Amino acid sequence: MKLASIKSGRDGALVVVNNSLTKMACAGHIATTMQDALDDWANVEPKLQALSVQLENGEVETADFDQTQADSPLPRAYQWADGSAYVNHVELVRRARNAEMPATFWTDPLMYQGGSDSFLAPRDNIVMPQDEGFGIDFEAEVAVITGDVPMGVSAEDALNYINLVMIVNDVSLRGLIPGELAKGFGFFQSKPSSAFSPVCVTPDQLGDAWVDGKLHLPLNSKYNNELFGKPEAGIDMTFNFGQLVAHAARTRPLCAGTVIGSGTVSNKLNDGPGKPVSEGGVGYSCIAEIRMIETIENGKPTTPFMSFGDNIEMEMFDKDGQSIFGQINQTVVKG
Amino acid sequence: MKLASIKSGRDGALVVVNNSLTKMACAGHIATTMQDALDDWANVEPKLQALSVQLENGEVETADFDQTQADSPLPRAYQWADGSAYVNHVELVRRARNAEMPATFWTDPLMYQGGSDSFLAPRDNIVMPQDEGFGIDFEAEVAVITGDVPMGVSAEDALNYINLVMIVNDVSLRGLIPGELAKGFGFFQSKPSSAFSPVCVTPDQLGDAWVDGKLHLPLNSKYNNELFGKPEAGIDMTFNFGQLVAHAARTRPLCAGTVIGSGTVSNKLNDGPGKPVSEGGVGYSCIAEIRMIETIENGKPTTPFMSFGDNIEMEMFDKDGQSIFGQINQTVVKG
Repeated sequence: MKLASIKSGRDGALVVVNNSLTKMACAGHIATTMQDALDDWANVEPKLQALSVQLENGEVETADFDQTQADSPLPRAYQWADGSAYVNHVELVRRARNAEMPATFWTDPLMYQGGSDSFLAPRDNIVMPQDEGFGIDFEAEVAVITGDVPMGVSAEDALNYINLVMIVNDVSLRGLIPGELAKGFGFFQSKPSSAFSPVCVTPDQLGDAWVDGKLHLPLNSKYNNELFGKPEAGIDMTFNFGQLVAHAARTRPLCAGTVIGSGTVSNKLNDGPGKPVSEGGVGYSCIAEIRMIETIENGKPTTPFMSFGDNIEMEMFDKDGQSIFGQINQTVVKG
Repeated sequence: MKLASIKSGRDGALVVVNNSLTKMACAGHIATTMQDALDDWANVEPKLQALSVQLENGEVETADFDQTQADSPLPRAYQWADGSAYVNHVELVRRARNAEMPATFWTDPLMYQGGSDSFLAPRDNIVMPQDEGFGIDFEAEVAVITGDVPMGVSAEDALNYINLVMIVNDVSLRGLIPGELAKGFGFFQSKPSSAFSPVCVTPDQLGDAWVDGKLHLPLNSKYNNELFGKPEAGIDMTFNFGQLVAHAARTRPLCAGTVIGSGTVSNKLNDGPGKPVSEGGVGYSCIAEIRMIETIENGKPTTPFMSFGDNIEMEMFDKDGQSIFGQINQTVVKG
């Protein structure tokens, strides 16, 4: 089943979308908003699934699905917690600045608490007061939306609380990160609003691409119309989504509608850093990573961060070439 | 005007409470929940204010207000960002571990992104899987709830977006903090669910105790039935709430219903650490602070963190001795 929130008020209007992302059916008679659906998921999900079947069979009134009219599936959420599950990526960051990575990073997930009150729509501009010095970067990630998760859930049981899957552009301001992390309290100003894909889907919709809490498909990032990265999200993911959810729930329960991110998707190559797409590699899911590799190889980075006018697209296709979540497509503008 | 959310479903039922906290009037015909009210504040606030006047004048149907039936004013919120505005407290933490405090800490607020999806009710137990090693601590703070705040707002203008004021117990797990902060991504598991006061109030309700974005009244913490702290929240607050809100909004807008905390309230004494209440001082708003002072004075802390069965009460009284926000009253239990 594929779901979306059509722009309407603060929280959008819930619709069911067909597999080919061309048609949608209003779901307002079942649940008004995505959060309403998640708040009563056990009751609501079977009804939405039935509507999804009717939609595919042409048994229900439909409208054209226009991705530009879609808000993020949860236009605002009660929680956004972003992991850093591709430890390869973390190791590269460290290596670029000659810092040792603690061995526990392979066993204890890194995760930060993000702002969830003002997500961007998937086609919204990234509005920034300045580009110079901010180090504006995209990060292509996979994310899940949970139901109510009890405190202390095991990593294995946590998989049962994953209701929906989507992709996300976790916008980052690299120029503000070092100063902010040095203060010791984690990210804040360096993580402005994130944007999620137009559509989120139930894990069953992903078929055999969803295995053991990982999504085994390439995540494509196109930067200024050129393919920048296509790493496979199921490869080199040190912690699966069950482990990430369990980490978040160790000392508190998670409310339905909690969004948990994977961190920047990143694949190794022969146990070393990957290659750019232009050199036959799978490329990268953020500019910071290619800059790290440039630093490791040439002593300094050459690819600049995003400036006003730069554009990023993110999309994932199933084995039949069908876009699963629709497209994130954002341009950096001054505001 | 005083508002509360009576326990009902996930988001409570909005009521107006009288000044003496004895009576309430249902506000459901104006706005169903506190978040609904905040989402349309310009429209809703005058109607709630009118109801508040009717309530004080006995012109409206009322019910007894029972603090034990109150949820946190926002039982779940889209954002909880907690500052550390009493830099005195931060300096003491550092001094206890012989660490220099960067000079910028006096000019650039410390703030962390907290979890806002599962707040505790003001009289809920603090349920923890273990006490040993967790270092369970309370933190008495003042907090505000904002309207929609534009990105890049000035500290001065930010004061105009503060709609409501309350107090909060920002529960902290001191035993988990060093390991978590060492990972570099800030607090997560070390900051379990916080609890807010039964009642929140509009700034005008605070009269001349609300000056320049600071609340000039003592915040009382009673630990196991003994007064533990009564520091004056307007004194030694390096950053006022306008500066804290502006800090949060530097790179993204804040959604209506954003909760911003002051950090642990702490007063200096003759430019040095304060004294316990038992020695004639104003005491402390968290156990960590008395432990720091014990460490500075005796080389090691002697006051233990909270164990199962320990109880914390927080309350603030106006000049007439009237409780402003009602009482937070929580006991640590195993769960």
